[in-house]
Amino acid sequence: MATAGKVIKCKAAVAWAPNKPLVIEEIEVAPPQANEVRIKIVATGLCHTDLYHLFEGMHKDGFPAVLGHEGAGIVESVGPGVTEFQPGDKVIPLFISQCQECRFCKNPKTNQCDKGWAAERYDVMALDDSRFTCKGKKVLQFMGTSTFSEYTVINQIAVAKIDPAAPLEKVCLFGCGVCTGFGAAVNTAKVEPGSTCAVFGLGAVGLAAVMGCKFAGAKRIIAVDVNPDKFEKAKVFGATEFVNPKDHNKPISQVLAEMTDGGVDYSLECVGNVGVMRSALESCVAGWGVSVIVGWTDMHDFAARPLQLITGRTWKGSLFGGFKSKDGVPKMVKAYLDKKVKLDEFITHHMTLAQINDGIELMKQGKCIRTVLSVSPQ
Amino acid sequence: MATAGKVIKCKAAVAWAPNKPLVIEEIEVAPPQANEVRIKIVATGLCHTDLYHLFEGMHKDGFPAVLGHEGAGIVESVGPGVTEFQPGDKVIPLFISQCQECRFCKNPKTNQCDKGWAAERYDVMALDDSRFTCKGKKVLQFMGTSTFSEYTVINQIAVAKIDPAAPLEKVCLFGCGVCTGFGAAVNTAKVEPGSTCAVFGLGAVGLAAVMGCKFAGAKRIIAVDVNPDKFEKAKVFGATEFVNPKDHNKPISQVLAEMTDGGVDYSLECVGNVGVMRSALESCVAGWGVSVIVGWTDMHDFAARPLQLITGRTWKGSLFGGFKSKDGVPKMVKAYLDKKVKLDEFITHHMTLAQINDGIELMKQGKCIRTVLSVSPQ
Repeated sequence: MATAGKVIKCKAAVAWAPNKPLVIEEIEVAPPQANEVRIKIVATGLCHTDLYHLFEGMHKDGFPAVLGHEGAGIVESVGPGVTEFQPGDKVIPLFISQCQECRFCKNPKTNQCDKGWAAERYDVMALDDSRFTCKGKKVLQFMGTSTFSEYTVINQIAVAKIDPAAPLEKVCLFGCGVCTGFGAAVNTAKVEPGSTCAVFGLGAVGLAAVMGCKFAGAKRIIAVDVNPDKFEKAKVFGATEFVNPKDHNKPISQVLAEMTDGGVDYSLECVGNVGVMRSALESCVAGWGVSVIVGWTDMHDFAARPLQLITGRTWKGSLFGGFKSKDGVPKMVKAYLDKKVKLDEFITHHMTLAQINDGIELMKQGKCIRTVLSVSPQ
Repeated sequence: MATAGKVIKCKAAVAWAPNKPLVIEEIEVAPPQANEVRIKIVATGLCHTDLYHLFEGMHKDGFPAVLGHEGAGIVESVGPGVTEFQPGDKVIPLFISQCQECRFCKNPKTNQCDKGWAAERYDVMALDDSRFTCKGKKVLQFMGTSTFSEYTVINQIAVAKIDPAAPLEKVCLFGCGVCTGFGAAVNTAKVEPGSTCAVFGLGAVGLAAVMGCKFAGAKRIIAVDVNPDKFEKAKVFGATEFVNPKDHNKPISQVLAEMTDGGVDYSLECVGNVGVMRSALESCVAGWGVSVIVGWTDMHDFAARPLQLITGRTWKGSLFGGFKSKDGVPKMVKAYLDKKVKLDEFITHHMTLAQINDGIELMKQGKCIRTVLSVSPQ
């Protein structure tokens, strides 16, 4: 392409500081270096983790940054040493890498990777190296991805090539939320056919967890949320019952225990709140109940009584649904194209990159499931 | 036998109140009722759980009681409906029952049982029914067993028949501590060959966990205790390295991470301290580390950071080593007779029932691994 090897000037939504609206700026995107891929981002979802970083502030050296980690795009050019990708390939950026060489990648039990950005600087959610500059200043890349930009540069270990037939403005959601929830049920909890599940929190991740429970053959899927408006959507993905904790004057774990003869087989916490994590564990049946923490938070400790584990419950956590990213994402895209999993139903709003602050506002108010932003024209 | 169907008067160590020495009293032991077995206790171990009950006080209606739950004996008589046992059978009382009919017993994932004493009154560790009286007063049976008595009466779902060749003054330890630690490694953690393990706390349960790790094929077994005197004994059971947290001015989890390239594959908490539980979890490697809570406590919450689970650690608990009790105990006895597991090495002191308060004092001071009391002559 004409742009290969050159700096690209393009639009991006820059986060200059915590708790401030993003600003659409012209940024410079350097060419990919060794083992890197420069990608034209076609579409991106807005995920709560972006919000968490933006509004909670994380660490002061996390700014300025280009956020966004749930995107899909087309390879524009590749750096030296890249043989897996070619210009024109449809790809999804991966906030969890899969280098295929480290001890984590070689172990089927985990989807961690020793070579990702997170291995070095989890605290600020961005490496201190970046291919972005704006107004003469280095701009950090969030979670190794940065999809709120018309172009981004990503290490090839953090890019998945997907089916050329995939609609990018939809499959971008496999970059985070849908894989995270779906995989937490299927890969981490390992939900068994005929079982009873509870999903706490019915955002996109929770709805994807509901879909995962159904996909795995759960018989009862109890959707728990303080907002009953979400139940209709949860039904679409397979929820069989709905409980609003506000309708009860006893702990939700007790409500679920009474509904299920002692507790559910699997519970999935898709909120990111340590109180809900405890409720989710306590809602599991003794003996074999498995509770999975899916919601991302790290500001407070989670806690419970030792006897709750000693009597046979298991507490696990799930990141990106336990999917080895490079292997898993193309399979999920295929499953969508084969109509084995739903995706369109998560998308409640379409906007453009220029409208990103409106999209963030919708998310803050809980008025959307997923907003997809068109970034670059295809 | 001449005593069948009659009340037996015999000696027992009665706990009249929390924090007081036990008193050797003459008690009356009623004949077994339907589905019950009356057992002459030949030997019993002293376990920290007895101490916990005795000195922490639990609940005020837990007294008076006959404690003891790690015993072995001989069936004296059986009540109506008992066909599995006959007078003269060698048996081990089980503080976890196995009714073989409830949904827990029918599920291979758990050793919980819906029909045990614990299902009704976990808070006081004794049912309010009992076959014991002393000085006209009902005396409670601790954990459904009460082995600090020459005779006790137990529901047949909580009795395991063992090999007639078994030496009762040794195999009594399979009634709690040794199965608890060994099984936590083998059944609950499911330690894999070649793995690296850490065992926190080197009492009988911890040493049995070390033995379980070795039995399962662990390559490195790091024994952690603040008392370095225990390392020699830990070596006997298979420990390969020893760490005393007092020798380091950084967290033990960091010490272990440095020794093991990021953390151990499995950690077992055999202390019953929520701070140690956290350290044990934090000592596990991200990705696949499994930490098992074995030590019994329920006074405080345990806690950790959500990210520690989200990055791939699993937190479990283990009660009686995950053994389905009636099935597991005879197999462990057989394994001992076949010299596949050690047992004699746990026993540091022999005493009689009359010396029980001396034995408790030794345990409080951490001066023994296991004291076995001779109760009735065989």
